[in-house]
Amino acid sequence: MKDDLNPIINAVMESYDTIGAINHMEGPRLPSRPSIRRILNDLHALIFPGYQTEENVARHNARFLVAERLGAIAGRLSEEVYRSLCFKHDICGEDARAEQHRENAQQITFEFLATIPEVRRRVKLDVEAAYAGDPAAKSTEEIILAYPGVDAIMTHRLAHELWIRDVPLIPRMMSEEIHGRTGIDIHPGATIGDFFFIDHATGVVIGETTVIGKHVKIYQGVTIGALSVRKRDSDTKRHPTIEDNVTIYAGATILGGKTTIGHDSIIGGNVWLTESVPPRSRVYSRHDVKYAGRS
Amino acid sequence: MKDDLNPIINAVMESYDTIGAINHMEGPRLPSRPSIRRILNDLHALIFPGYQTEENVARHNARFLVAERLGAIAGRLSEEVYRSLCFKHDICGEDARAEQHRENAQQITFEFLATIPEVRRRVKLDVEAAYAGDPAAKSTEEIILAYPGVDAIMTHRLAHELWIRDVPLIPRMMSEEIHGRTGIDIHPGATIGDFFFIDHATGVVIGETTVIGKHVKIYQGVTIGALSVRKRDSDTKRHPTIEDNVTIYAGATILGGKTTIGHDSIIGGNVWLTESVPPRSRVYSRHDVKYAGRS
Amino acid sequence: MKDDLNPIINAVMESYDTIGAINHMEGPRLPSRPSIRRILNDLHALIFPGYQTEENVARHNARFLVAERLGAIAGRLSEEVYRSLCFKHDICGEDARAEQHRENAQQITFEFLATIPEVRRRVKLDVEAAYAGDPAAKSTEEIILAYPGVDAIMTHRLAHELWIRDVPLIPRMMSEEIHGRTGIDIHPGATIGDFFFIDHATGVVIGETTVIGKHVKIYQGVTIGALSVRKRDSDTKRHPTIEDNVTIYAGATILGGKTTIGHDSIIGGNVWLTESVPPRSRVYSRHDVKYAGRS
Amino acid sequence: MKDDLNPIINAVMESYDTIGAINHMEGPRLPSRPSIRRILNDLHALIFPGYQTEENVARHNARFLVAERLGAIAGRLSEEVYRSLCFKHDICGEDARAEQHRENAQQITFEFLATIPEVRRRVKLDVEAAYAGDPAAKSTEEIILAYPGVDAIMTHRLAHELWIRDVPLIPRMMSEEIHGRTGIDIHPGATIGDFFFIDHATGVVIGETTVIGKHVKIYQGVTIGALSVRKRDSDTKRHPTIEDNVTIYAGATILGGKTTIGHDSIIGGNVWLTESVPPRSRVYSRHDVKYAGRS
Amino acid sequence: MKDDLNPIINAVMESYDTIGAINHMEGPRLPSRPSIRRILNDLHALIFPGYQTEENVARHNARFLVAERLGAIAGRLSEEVYRSLCFKHDICGEDARAEQHRENAQQITFEFLATIPEVRRRVKLDVEAAYAGDPAAKSTEEIILAYPGVDAIMTHRLAHELWIRDVPLIPRMMSEEIHGRTGIDIHPGATIGDFFFIDHATGVVIGETTVIGKHVKIYQGVTIGALSVRKRDSDTKRHPTIEDNVTIYAGATILGGKTTIGHDSIIGGNVWLTESVPPRSRVYSRHDVKYAGRS
Amino acid sequence: MKDDLNPIINAVMESYDTIGAINHMEGPRLPSRPSIRRILNDLHALIFPGYQTEENVARHNARFLVAERLGAIAGRLSEEVYRSLCFKHDICGEDARAEQHRENAQQITFEFLATIPEVRRRVKLDVEAAYAGDPAAKSTEEIILAYPGVDAIMTHRLAHELWIRDVPLIPRMMSEEIHGRTGIDIHPGATIGDFFFIDHATGVVIGETTVIGKHVKIYQGVTIGALSVRKRDSDTKRHPTIEDNVTIYAGATILGGKTTIGHDSIIGGNVWLTESVPPRSRVYSRHDVKYAGRS
Repeated sequence: MKDDLNPIINAVMESYDTIGAINHMEGPRLPSRPSIRRILNDLHALIFPGYQTEENVARHNARFLVAERLGAIAGRLSEEVYRSLCFKHDICGEDARAEQHRENAQQITFEFLATIPEVRRRVKLDVEAAYAGDPAAKSTEEIILAYPGVDAIMTHRLAHELWIRDVPLIPRMMSEEIHGRTGIDIHPGATIGDFFFIDHATGVVIGETTVIGKHVKIYQGVTIGALSVRKRDSDTKRHPTIEDNVTIYAGATILGGKTTIGHDSIIGGNVWLTESVPPRSRVYSRHDVKYAGRS
Repeated sequence: MKDDLNPIINAVMESYDTIGAINHMEGPRLPSRPSIRRILNDLHALIFPGYQTEENVARHNARFLVAERLGAIAGRLSEEVYRSLCFKHDICGEDARAEQHRENAQQITFEFLATIPEVRRRVKLDVEAAYAGDPAAKSTEEIILAYPGVDAIMTHRLAHELWIRDVPLIPRMMSEEIHGRTGIDIHPGATIGDFFFIDHATGVVIGETTVIGKHVKIYQGVTIGALSVRKRDSDTKRHPTIEDNVTIYAGATILGGKTTIGHDSIIGGNVWLTESVPPRSRVYSRHDVKYAGRS
Repeated sequence: MKDDLNPIINAVMESYDTIGAINHMEGPRLPSRPSIRRILNDLHALIFPGYQTEENVARHNARFLVAERLGAIAGRLSEEVYRSLCFKHDICGEDARAEQHRENAQQITFEFLATIPEVRRRVKLDVEAAYAGDPAAKSTEEIILAYPGVDAIMTHRLAHELWIRDVPLIPRMMSEEIHGRTGIDIHPGATIGDFFFIDHATGVVIGETTVIGKHVKIYQGVTIGALSVRKRDSDTKRHPTIEDNVTIYAGATILGGKTTIGHDSIIGGNVWLTESVPPRSRVYSRHDVKYAGRS
Repeated sequence: MKDDLNPIINAVMESYDTIGAINHMEGPRLPSRPSIRRILNDLHALIFPGYQTEENVARHNARFLVAERLGAIAGRLSEEVYRSLCFKHDICGEDARAEQHRENAQQITFEFLATIPEVRRRVKLDVEAAYAGDPAAKSTEEIILAYPGVDAIMTHRLAHELWIRDVPLIPRMMSEEIHGRTGIDIHPGATIGDFFFIDHATGVVIGETTVIGKHVKIYQGVTIGALSVRKRDSDTKRHPTIEDNVTIYAGATILGGKTTIGHDSIIGGNVWLTESVPPRSRVYSRHDVKYAGRS
Repeated sequence: MKDDLNPIINAVMESYDTIGAINHMEGPRLPSRPSIRRILNDLHALIFPGYQTEENVARHNARFLVAERLGAIAGRLSEEVYRSLCFKHDICGEDARAEQHRENAQQITFEFLATIPEVRRRVKLDVEAAYAGDPAAKSTEEIILAYPGVDAIMTHRLAHELWIRDVPLIPRMMSEEIHGRTGIDIHPGATIGDFFFIDHATGVVIGETTVIGKHVKIYQGVTIGALSVRKRDSDTKRHPTIEDNVTIYAGATILGGKTTIGHDSIIGGNVWLTESVPPRSRVYSRHDVKYAGRS
Repeated sequence: MKDDLNPIINAVMESYDTIGAINHMEGPRLPSRPSIRRILNDLHALIFPGYQTEENVARHNARFLVAERLGAIAGRLSEEVYRSLCFKHDICGEDARAEQHRENAQQITFEFLATIPEVRRRVKLDVEAAYAGDPAAKSTEEIILAYPGVDAIMTHRLAHELWIRDVPLIPRMMSEEIHGRTGIDIHPGATIGDFFFIDHATGVVIGETTVIGKHVKIYQGVTIGALSVRKRDSDTKRHPTIEDNVTIYAGATILGGKTTIGHDSIIGGNVWLTESVPPRSRVYSRHDVKYAGRS
């Protein structure tokens, strides 16, 4: 009879046995995507108080809100870090070490939360860079409300704090969350200096071992990526270094761990660069366009 | 003791005092992102009746639905416009002027709502252009259901109506909302003619002072942007003019306020243009590819 | 009196009569976007058991979960397929044929669900390809949790199964759903071989009649598109063929139904190709950058 | 194998065939409980503007809110009334008559909505009665916020307007909705005069053919019910008449269609009355309590 | 400083140590109230197909819906039964026995689900009794949509099936869920025969060891309870027996494990009975009302 | 034209002018019912940690959860108390006094939160009383999960703490919230001693000036109410005093501010008492039932 799902159920169940590598059954629980999302939203509210919907932040209730949000983040993040440590070491069955993971997760969470004031200090500089760098921006409030590049760099600065504390999975889940929302894919391992601004934030890729200086500005479609894609190179520096005061226009691609863009350089749109350029360079694509068929 | 959040609470609170520029405390409430999102969803439902989930629009209930949606939009938008006017003038503490803002907000809201029939007329032409321009499209229903470019141009045409009425913040929040969903970043200030079609809508940027004619078609990754990024140039025309019947292929970048693409031109993929081309031009990148290492 | 919405209601109602092509009133109900979204989410949970939030999949309850999800998908998808068949044939008023559509919809739904084990087998290969191809990937779990390219290819493989069964609208709605989330626009008609990997998934376009072999890897911003955009060409092969073991770097554009990239080729970043290249080609853009103005 | 649900699925399916009277399959859709709930919530907001959560009703937006809510109610209620008319006449398959039901449903909905100002006038009197009648009440705002008896009489006055227009199912669904929330079961057929107050609203039953005058006050646990429970008596007056200015204390039971409580009477707690009493009666239970076993 | 929550946090934490009996920390997880609620809602939808909101149950999709709901209930209930078995035996730390509980939970769940057709058969008789017993009822659909007594008896019949299988906590949570919604408190241990009807369902209490025959009808405010309230009597029959064809009017109280109401009796309103009455009794309160103070 | 809502909108708007007493427009915002509900839910979670859905409270995260919940309650309750103080004094327009209300609201909120440990201590005694008093109760966990009487007394003990601090509206909104869920209506002004237990909690009323001693147990349908209902008596003690160790059976009604039930008394079911009884009384209704018509 055709409306019987049972054979299909059986086939799917069997495929869980025979095609197992993409299951996650019986093991410790993985970090939760919605939980990571809520943590990021609460962090956003802590960094930019007063920008949440229908929230009326004033002196008299600010401390309550901060206490509530920090409590919520601490509880959730501590759990997610614990899960990711269990996943990494795959030993949560042994009670003593699970307890140790628990404590480490809490320790890491506290260290992370303690960086929030410093992250705020740096994000404020990023907002200033955005305001200075875009003639269309009418106010800093507009930037915080409507510039996805600011969300992306804020998320990166937070995810990076977990990354440097060797937390697995979660920093990448954070960067992927904001990638999905903005089209900006910054690997949490990247090192990015103050006053960073991505305009028209879309289709940007910044790789794991990238190092970016201060006052760097990049446009949509820029890739700062790797040449080598061999697994065995995963521990070396595979992505470029961008020194201070560099501007990279739309669609430019800069590749390779030994490629350095010297300070105060300008990289034109659609440029493809796999080798270093000295400070104060001006690098443009040859726009040899063909004008054809005009009547 | 390590599980005490209090020092972190104190540090965050202190950072609200010392790093104040990215707080929004004590001032008038800013426009609400979720509210803007609901307004856009209701406008979408007004423009394209019958495409909402589980909604059964027929003659007998259409008027009710229209009344309900217009009522909802009017109430919410009027509030958000009021907030943005208060933000702009920063004087809502003085009662008389706040009341004046209230009235202006309502006036603007009514004028805006009255443009909906005209916006529908124009969006219908955009849908026709999409159907004519994509061989893969099987029906106009498919276009309305599954072409993000249509959502983007509809949103732009609405946001632009608020922009030309000098409403701050909200038009940009609308354009950013659709940017986040589709990867199409059209500044609400841009002027765009009828029969506009963006195919494979992703990574498109159209700047504030752009002027686009009729029957223009662009592909993914196209930038119509500025050369100048100096704040003091914010009042001049910094973005190109695209005349009627122009097609711009994927990845092309056209920059500069004095750059005009003459009518009936075709701009090839990945072309980089910073100067004007006459009508009926055909401009292609030189595809000087190197064929190397083939065995 | 200015706060009377009635004239605007009248004008909108009138525009529904005079500008009708973008209404969908009185006809059969169209497939529902939120329903398609739920179906995709449930399919994701069937393909990758144990990756959903707070879900604890273990031997003892796996069968229940599979039964529940298959039941849910079967009910919803069958309804949506029925609607799309009604839309296509526009004859649901005639009872006998509506009943026939009902049965066809159910038949198609069952055939579709029966492909899930095979889709899992193939998606597992795609995950392997991603792990092998990205030095930054630390585990397959990380790939399933945080690589949008995997979501996109999984969605494509499912949508394609409906496409080859001539279901209208729904496959495109599925591909657009994942396009909106990831910026990857794969037309459901495209034929894609095993071990497919899209890195830094953003701004990718793969057209309807594309044919892709095995072990193909592409990067952000790649377009595999059409040259011809004439409606009358909609039945011919308008998109390229990519043979086995080809890598295509960021921003490359390959166009045309007669364009074939021979096996084991590498296409460099930003390359623009409209003609075939033989096997084992290495094709790079000429990076004639201009170094100007350095002090 | 024990985890196979299929035999149970089969058994349940079979029971749908053999035990059919409590299925509702294949017929016209019944009115929706959640929809009725939303309608009641919106009506509550129209009757008592400014008491909804987070709603800021002021002159400048009141008209919008009213328009939005009336639009919402009109659309939903019209659909639910249509369904209940179809259910009653069981003829919605015949197109012409279905269309007639559609029009009737709309006509009834409009008549119903037009009674709202009159219902408000009467509910205001009920609120006054509550304030006057309860020494514990500190303000009318407290009564509207925290006295379930007011919600119950408001709901009754609305449901009654549908009842007298011969709408099936919906008035009873409305009375049951408020019964579930407050424990007050007023049949929508009951006729209730102005200034009605139920204190400590719990466990109150008022039957279909009850007639209640003005300034009547009743307490928790009062039943105004029927003696006869024969189906063939369903068209006669089976419930009491309560004249003006009567107070009925907690737990009293008054039964029978011929029972009339004369005006200005007081009925004591736990009294059981099945016959009429003249005006100005004082009727008390004989409290012959036994004092036993005290040491 | 007064806005510091820390001392209060400390005091609450300390009270968790010193006032521990009402904590539930570190132990196995208790059954979840929302999960029980969802299970009951799904069971309601299985018992009464076609009465859910916006659900269109027809032949063609009924099997899917049944499969989906049974799958959902099986998964959730199995988990909740497991938790309650762990709670009862307090030994889930020992793996072997936990596994045994897992299997028992699944076994009980399957036995329970297999009773659904029989429960449907009996609930249908209850609906018939309600229709026959209330002259105000216009249709069986009205009864299913708007008579809380039907929800209560359906829930009882289901909870009782778990009770007789010695499942702890869950049957009481089910009965409390429906108590909260309807004011009808039927202990899941009570034995209730066919054709049971509670009219104006409010304030009804039926104790754990009550035995009720067929064709029994009771009204609001009826208590069938215990005389003894000593903990050591918890295993004896403490509640009355009600034989077939008995009607009990509003507010009557019948107490004691040895009290039997003989068949075909009628118990009047507000009667207080602690001893048995023979078959065909008519028992009324003496309504010695005092008529006082009439002018 | 019949589908024009405008005349109805006009009529409703006009009724807001002419029937104003039940509007709340333009004034300060009233406390919010959903906010009160959330506060109560969070308080429940603080009092009974580990009983919330899917919450896993253990040593390692308890402090976080407490911090989060206290922060949330403090922020919300402080706002609601502020609103109710503004409502009471109707002077929030004058800035200095509004600020004073703000501070008072915060002060009261802190005092209230500081009582939580003491409330827990007392609620624990109530749970013990329930366990001791009901032979059907199998564990204290069952009591906390499934006895509405416990929720009601917990809510009362909290609401009473606000009442004695002269907070308007909110204590009554809290008592009404739990009244709606359980049918137990305890005025927040009532004074209730330790070890209080309401069995089969339904239809219970306890008035504002009631005083109840320790170890008192009452059953469903009990009223402890007022004789006088004159507004001018609102400041006097209008409700009874119940001394220690009293049991009051179902349906009993005890009225009057001078009525005292002496300690160690038992009040039988359905008793109606308006005068005091000495300690150790046994008071029963005369159950003069008529046995009639038996064949």
